[in-house]
Amino acid sequence: MTHPSAPSPERDKGTARIEAFSDGVLAIIITLLVFGIQVPSRETVAQDGLLRALLDQWPMYLAFTASFFFILVMWINHHRLFLAIRRSDNTLMLLNGLLLFGISLVPFPTAVVAEYLDHPEQTVAVMVYNGWYFVIAIFFNLLWRYAGHHNRLFDAQTDPALVAFITRQYSVGPLLYLGAALLAFVHPLVSLLASIALAVFFALPNRDVDRLIGQ
Amino acid sequence: MTHPSAPSPERDKGTARIEAFSDGVLAIIITLLVFGIQVPSRETVAQDGLLRALLDQWPMYLAFTASFFFILVMWINHHRLFLAIRRSDNTLMLLNGLLLFGISLVPFPTAVVAEYLDHPEQTVAVMVYNGWYFVIAIFFNLLWRYAGHHNRLFDAQTDPALVAFITRQYSVGPLLYLGAALLAFVHPLVSLLASIALAVFFALPNRDVDRLIGQ
Amino acid sequence: MTHPSAPSPERDKGTARIEAFSDGVLAIIITLLVFGIQVPSRETVAQDGLLRALLDQWPMYLAFTASFFFILVMWINHHRLFLAIRRSDNTLMLLNGLLLFGISLVPFPTAVVAEYLDHPEQTVAVMVYNGWYFVIAIFFNLLWRYAGHHNRLFDAQTDPALVAFITRQYSVGPLLYLGAALLAFVHPLVSLLASIALAVFFALPNRDVDRLIGQ
Amino acid sequence: MTHPSAPSPERDKGTARIEAFSDGVLAIIITLLVFGIQVPSRETVAQDGLLRALLDQWPMYLAFTASFFFILVMWINHHRLFLAIRRSDNTLMLLNGLLLFGISLVPFPTAVVAEYLDHPEQTVAVMVYNGWYFVIAIFFNLLWRYAGHHNRLFDAQTDPALVAFITRQYSVGPLLYLGAALLAFVHPLVSLLASIALAVFFALPNRDVDRLIGQ
Repeated sequence: MTHPSAPSPERDKGTARIEAFSDGVLAIIITLLVFGIQVPSRETVAQDGLLRALLDQWPMYLAFTASFFFILVMWINHHRLFLAIRRSDNTLMLLNGLLLFGISLVPFPTAVVAEYLDHPEQTVAVMVYNGWYFVIAIFFNLLWRYAGHHNRLFDAQTDPALVAFITRQYSVGPLLYLGAALLAFVHPLVSLLASIALAVFFALPNRDVDRLIGQ
Repeated sequence: MTHPSAPSPERDKGTARIEAFSDGVLAIIITLLVFGIQVPSRETVAQDGLLRALLDQWPMYLAFTASFFFILVMWINHHRLFLAIRRSDNTLMLLNGLLLFGISLVPFPTAVVAEYLDHPEQTVAVMVYNGWYFVIAIFFNLLWRYAGHHNRLFDAQTDPALVAFITRQYSVGPLLYLGAALLAFVHPLVSLLASIALAVFFALPNRDVDRLIGQ
Repeated sequence: MTHPSAPSPERDKGTARIEAFSDGVLAIIITLLVFGIQVPSRETVAQDGLLRALLDQWPMYLAFTASFFFILVMWINHHRLFLAIRRSDNTLMLLNGLLLFGISLVPFPTAVVAEYLDHPEQTVAVMVYNGWYFVIAIFFNLLWRYAGHHNRLFDAQTDPALVAFITRQYSVGPLLYLGAALLAFVHPLVSLLASIALAVFFALPNRDVDRLIGQ
Repeated sequence: MTHPSAPSPERDKGTARIEAFSDGVLAIIITLLVFGIQVPSRETVAQDGLLRALLDQWPMYLAFTASFFFILVMWINHHRLFLAIRRSDNTLMLLNGLLLFGISLVPFPTAVVAEYLDHPEQTVAVMVYNGWYFVIAIFFNLLWRYAGHHNRLFDAQTDPALVAFITRQYSVGPLLYLGAALLAFVHPLVSLLASIALAVFFALPNRDVDRLIGQ
């Protein structure tokens, strides 16, 4: 969203511009999610009362909450990547754009699951929702693998232990999200909760990363 | 929303990234509130005239105004906290994420109260609205208590008088908001106005804080 | 939206935080205006064709365009003020918050005029629209007069010629906007165009200001 | 959206403020596009099933995807311009405002094409969509030609080879977009795909620009 020393942002081939623009996009998406939550209509309230009508909307709150924390975890992950990635090129900008494209679509599957979680079509809704996180995990992998190929965009300050940690984490991430998505055939709500558990797990304070990064 | 010296934002364990991202989220939420205000429909205008139809929407304006200044006060408070909090860790990032989650939901209770303040269900609407501010006050407290436990995230530059002032203020804040919420059982509109009065009170220029901070 | 050297933003009593937050809010509002423009419904298109249906929406385009450039002019004005205002206090933050409150409401009168410019109630719609710019002009004046009272928030680098120029401009601004608003009783469209002309006039490259500022 | 050294942003006549504000506006627009994608209604889903209903919305996804990458390309282009443009004046601010005006309208033609691509009026819809990109290309040209007239806003650090490259690219850009728009009379979908191909072409990593900029 900003870059303080604007005159030569591309000349130094740094990543500040990409990170700032990405932060901006992520802050906006996480904030816009709330607009998927609708106020109960006067008809529903006349019939059930406002309190009951509000409680009946629990799938909306669940979908909103899940997506909020998913995007927060993605934000943390994105920054972790750019602790290792120290240089930039045009291809990185496009792959990062692809990733932002994936994340900026999140409000749509969120709205789908909010509308159809409590409905016979819930399996499709959860498949779409969790499946989209699988796609985003692939976009994250593309970015990371491009940057890490022969250490293309790393430099001397990049911590090899951090690189190893992220590479390990990223080789299982998509599979876990795919597994959570496929659970929808067994039980849609469990599938959704499994995805949320994955996000919480990735977001937990991690002593190893803290040790790697914190000094 | 931005962080000028991106290369090692986590390495220095500072709070710049958290504050910038939070500022971005708060600026977006405060701006999006206006979309809860709807233009009167052609049917209503045909019946009552545009002026009357606009004036009849006073609960929308009241709800919008209250939420705008609530979020402005929260922004001022958030910055005050980070005058004392000088270091960051993963748990702080999660607790701050929880706080942003709370604040980013504000447009929803705002829309509920805008729609149902002038309606038999007004008690529930105001309870939801004021109750949510009570929840946010608790999230603020969690953040502050985590940071302040054994001075965990303070440093030598943290002003002890400022810490004492915030701690004093935060120990009564949630109770006051809870009291304002419970007033809804007596009189919904008075309850809403009490909450607004609380926000105005916390936002008034405070000579003590100015003295602590200003030099 | 951001503040690079976050650790002690209030301690130096500068205006960077206020300006950055204001810039963020203004960028968001100017961008959100487009959501007042609606796609013609399938019914209208079936009857009139898409091209005709799009052209019939000219009041929406006019309202959007006017508000976009109004907010752009306000952004330029806001920055000009903070060329002179070099220090900050709590009251300035509140008065600036009041100004942002005024500006963040702009999408609402924009939507009113877009819906009712081409309608018997057009006089009321334009009065609301232009009247709101009059209110914002007053908020700008409050901010400026508070800061300038006995040079309260100026410092040695504040250019007296710039102060005189702004003071002169601000003493007539509200009256001109009020005049444009009252024109709505004579002819609503002329009143709207007069307001736009005022904005264009204030936004024209001004040799005097350029000379004052440019060196 | 931000400007780190706020005290005298206009005094140094740099372009940081313009670039930061533009970045903010672009980040917001690219993020808001997703709200043009609607969840299929319960009626449609009851009739066709959720999966089929989602797939039938392909024009929405196509329009969203095209506009997302168009705006990403515009962001890259905007930054490239400001590698050459090193100084600012009031006219540049207005011309940049005109360009942002053009870009901020993009969600509207996107919604038009999303709604009417799969409809007898598709030719008009695609003409409006591609035609708007032609208008934006003209706004880009105005900005560039104003800045480059007698090297008005360049300085000693501006790379003449970069200027020559941009000038060459900009002299054909509008014509190509116009050609793509006129293709709509032959085949609307081909016209839309031609526009997307143009955007992809301009976004491809360009060895010449990289060589010019990268060192």
